[in-house]
Amino acid sequence: MIVESRDGRPHPNRVTAVYRVEPGAVPPEELARLIAIEQTVEIPEALIPPGRIRDEIVGRVESITPDPGAPDANRITISYGAELASDLFGLLAVAIGNAPMYGGVRLVDLRPPQALLEALPGPNHGVEGVRRACGVLGRPLLATALKPQGSTVPELAAIGEAFARGGGDLVKDDQNLTDPFEAFRSRVLACAEAVDRGNQATGRKCLYLPHAGAPAEELERYVEFVAEAGLPGVLVCPMITGLDAVRAVAERYPLIFMGHPSLTGVYTHAPGHGVAHGVLLGTLFRLAGADISVFPDAGGRFQYTEAACVEITSRLREPLGGLRPAWPAPAGGMGPGDVGRICETYGPDTVLLIGGALLGHPEGIEAGTREILEGIREVHPEVSMQPAETPRSSLPEPRRLAFRKDWNWEGRDSSPYKDARDLAFRGVRRVELVGRFGERTRSDLRYFEVEPGGHTSLEKHVHTHVVIGARGEGVLLLGGRRLPLRPLDVACVGPLEAHQLRNETAEPFGFFCVVDHDRDRPMRAQ
Amino acid sequence: MIVESRDGRPHPNRVTAVYRVEPGAVPPEELARLIAIEQTVEIPEALIPPGRIRDEIVGRVESITPDPGAPDANRITISYGAELASDLFGLLAVAIGNAPMYGGVRLVDLRPPQALLEALPGPNHGVEGVRRACGVLGRPLLATALKPQGSTVPELAAIGEAFARGGGDLVKDDQNLTDPFEAFRSRVLACAEAVDRGNQATGRKCLYLPHAGAPAEELERYVEFVAEAGLPGVLVCPMITGLDAVRAVAERYPLIFMGHPSLTGVYTHAPGHGVAHGVLLGTLFRLAGADISVFPDAGGRFQYTEAACVEITSRLREPLGGLRPAWPAPAGGMGPGDVGRICETYGPDTVLLIGGALLGHPEGIEAGTREILEGIREVHPEVSMQPAETPRSSLPEPRRLAFRKDWNWEGRDSSPYKDARDLAFRGVRRVELVGRFGERTRSDLRYFEVEPGGHTSLEKHVHTHVVIGARGEGVLLLGGRRLPLRPLDVACVGPLEAHQLRNETAEPFGFFCVVDHDRDRPMRAQ
Repeated sequence: MIVESRDGRPHPNRVTAVYRVEPGAVPPEELARLIAIEQTVEIPEALIPPGRIRDEIVGRVESITPDPGAPDANRITISYGAELASDLFGLLAVAIGNAPMYGGVRLVDLRPPQALLEALPGPNHGVEGVRRACGVLGRPLLATALKPQGSTVPELAAIGEAFARGGGDLVKDDQNLTDPFEAFRSRVLACAEAVDRGNQATGRKCLYLPHAGAPAEELERYVEFVAEAGLPGVLVCPMITGLDAVRAVAERYPLIFMGHPSLTGVYTHAPGHGVAHGVLLGTLFRLAGADISVFPDAGGRFQYTEAACVEITSRLREPLGGLRPAWPAPAGGMGPGDVGRICETYGPDTVLLIGGALLGHPEGIEAGTREILEGIREVHPEVSMQPAETPRSSLPEPRRLAFRKDWNWEGRDSSPYKDARDLAFRGVRRVELVGRFGERTRSDLRYFEVEPGGHTSLEKHVHTHVVIGARGEGVLLLGGRRLPLRPLDVACVGPLEAHQLRNETAEPFGFFCVVDHDRDRPMRAQ
Repeated sequence: MIVESRDGRPHPNRVTAVYRVEPGAVPPEELARLIAIEQTVEIPEALIPPGRIRDEIVGRVESITPDPGAPDANRITISYGAELASDLFGLLAVAIGNAPMYGGVRLVDLRPPQALLEALPGPNHGVEGVRRACGVLGRPLLATALKPQGSTVPELAAIGEAFARGGGDLVKDDQNLTDPFEAFRSRVLACAEAVDRGNQATGRKCLYLPHAGAPAEELERYVEFVAEAGLPGVLVCPMITGLDAVRAVAERYPLIFMGHPSLTGVYTHAPGHGVAHGVLLGTLFRLAGADISVFPDAGGRFQYTEAACVEITSRLREPLGGLRPAWPAPAGGMGPGDVGRICETYGPDTVLLIGGALLGHPEGIEAGTREILEGIREVHPEVSMQPAETPRSSLPEPRRLAFRKDWNWEGRDSSPYKDARDLAFRGVRRVELVGRFGERTRSDLRYFEVEPGGHTSLEKHVHTHVVIGARGEGVLLLGGRRLPLRPLDVACVGPLEAHQLRNETAEPFGFFCVVDHDRDRPMRAQ
């Protein structure tokens, strides 16, 4: 289903949303108008100011057509200006937002504007990248899960090792495994070593994806650990963690992201309401950066229809800006007997996620894995390639910046500081020491030197400064105070505190400044 | 509705979830068993290991009773061990998780375990705190929104000022206002000044709550700015931002949090599926820290029933561990004519959120605000009190730590470093300079000094170090390297890099170390 504009083509510079609406007290034309207003200006129609707001901000009802599947229901197509969806937060707010509170409203298609598609990187690896990582071409990949919850670490690790020994491709943590960070760290290292042992036995490369099931403020640390431990990816639950939170870590860490459908049943499983399977587990998961999207196969234990599976799969693979296609990973109660059917139905670019049937295989996990892989290869023959090295991050050289007598550092340039907009300063040079060279620190370290009579700009910002005196003597103006700053003195500039550093002596004044790596731009202080 | 255990009392040490299930192909007893397994061990029943996993991890079906409202439907009560819900992530995963993928499953009651209730702070201010902040006792509060989206900053600010001049209590940004940080900063400052002008005219205190509608990686900066600008709170959309992400910022910033229902209609509006209104907008929002929960009033433009409004309201106010009661904020198309009814229905501890009817008031916003407040006071007379000062954060003193010739700093103690677990070191003293005294920096600054022959522990961790040589000469062991470190030399220790600092000279060796404020514990390096 491709949404078309009035002239028959998709709107590249608008969000296009198609809502299936159940027959109700409000006629569809009226409901369409209500939704178009609700999602944007959210005020009574009579109060909408004419001009730009009425013409550009309010959603535009593009079409109302009977639903092909149910004669009483309708499909309402509304488009919204791209500026209302400049990020994933905005897209969810404008396309879903309040609309479902009308009841019997289901988002059945969603086309993001071109600008958003260009802003979102999408899957880091996609179909081809995951194939390169495990070195398997031509056939579906086989995945399993470390479970059940409650098992000991050695028990979980043994599953991973046996699966890798059997030649399996991907092993993920169970999504119910959530641990405090230090327990997570130990468990993941143990399981990674076990999978490695299996890999050494086979010469293949089974990829281990731990579950980044962390409290919000620690998510990045969990993912960073996985990356730094040299593991290829993580499992995430986007609807618990938040779609945009997943997008943010996927942008920062170039790992494989496997999306788990926990909580998505709320969105997808009321037939006349919510969000269509394909829009959520296909389009939105892919926009958030999922390389692999797990969902229950229609043949499994959940109420999943074949149509839903096809819809998700199409959305993961269809053209979507420049985003990489992603893997469907049907799961949920499949056994060896389902392998042929799934391989035929979904085609080679599919991950078969088989848990219980492997854990309970009468000949054990290793033999079970081999048997299922045989079944897969019968339908789609395997072509092996050398697996790509999982990129190990390395810090930039030199690792130590030697101080020079002229107050510069080996390997770093000194640059005169330039006036930025209305932030005036005088006689300041800067040496960027740490943070701008790929160090992945949370803070940057800079050295500033102010000439006699010079000063930095009088500014304020939300991020804080820690200042360490290094050379000569200066004055830190902080709010109304004048604080002298001599070598090895330490001072703090708090959020939104007006501050300036001045040199009122006849010798150079130098200081180190520690500052957040990600920070807001300074604003002029009065 | 209070869920009871087999002996008739709630389980204080278990999660109790009640699912209403539609009549379907699977008998309710079978479905109950499936859900209890699905949400926990997620493997076929025959494979569940006996002992602790079968007895403690698998969910326990407590009761199955016919639904009082629909004879064919049933209510299934399942309890889960508290350790499966040690945080909000775990609670959502175990209580909702995969269950809705069975179709026709609605979570209608949820009782968190005592341990989780003790771990979550809940609303920072609650009913009493918000009353203190605006200085109004005895009557419902009146709130409005800055809108429509697309208005200029002066237009939005003018609404805030007029509302404050009319004596209004709370003004929030429209949830569709999402801006890049620097635009957000300017807009919020302009609107805050406008509301302040209104407050100066009345001597009252109208509270302005900007919308923290930020990309995930910037949420904290938006909220921090609001806090540092001296504003009392924020509006958040928990189901877009993520419930646990809201919980995390609410824990860190002691502001008033107003929760907006965007996206909640997906959860609540399929009658036989999803999550009950009260569980989501009452219990879960409150667990995430909402002081105020906005939802459409039954009399407004959405399909909200009176029962749903009552359920949300009860859940916001009912005893829930030691969590503060929160405010219901009925909204959505109410006008002056609804004021009496709403005051009567909801009682005095209610926020009336009136947008359109104020914006379109024939006598203007200021007069309209007065009129509506009159109506409120007629039902629930006002008792005024002195509004509490919005706490302005202040940094700890001294702001400058003067260096002393004995390599200590004024205002800071030096302490010998102690062996922690298996992390051995020798002859090290530490001076905590910045970060442990309420500075709210992202990084801590410490000075370490190693005696001749001494060394720090050989360790590694995910967080990074930036090291600046200060006194004497030492050696940084980094992986396999030996890097000399002299005064003003700078070095970086990357994630999971084994490192140690050694003094092989006859003089003290001192260095500054910059480290993440929130960081993982070191682990021994081989």
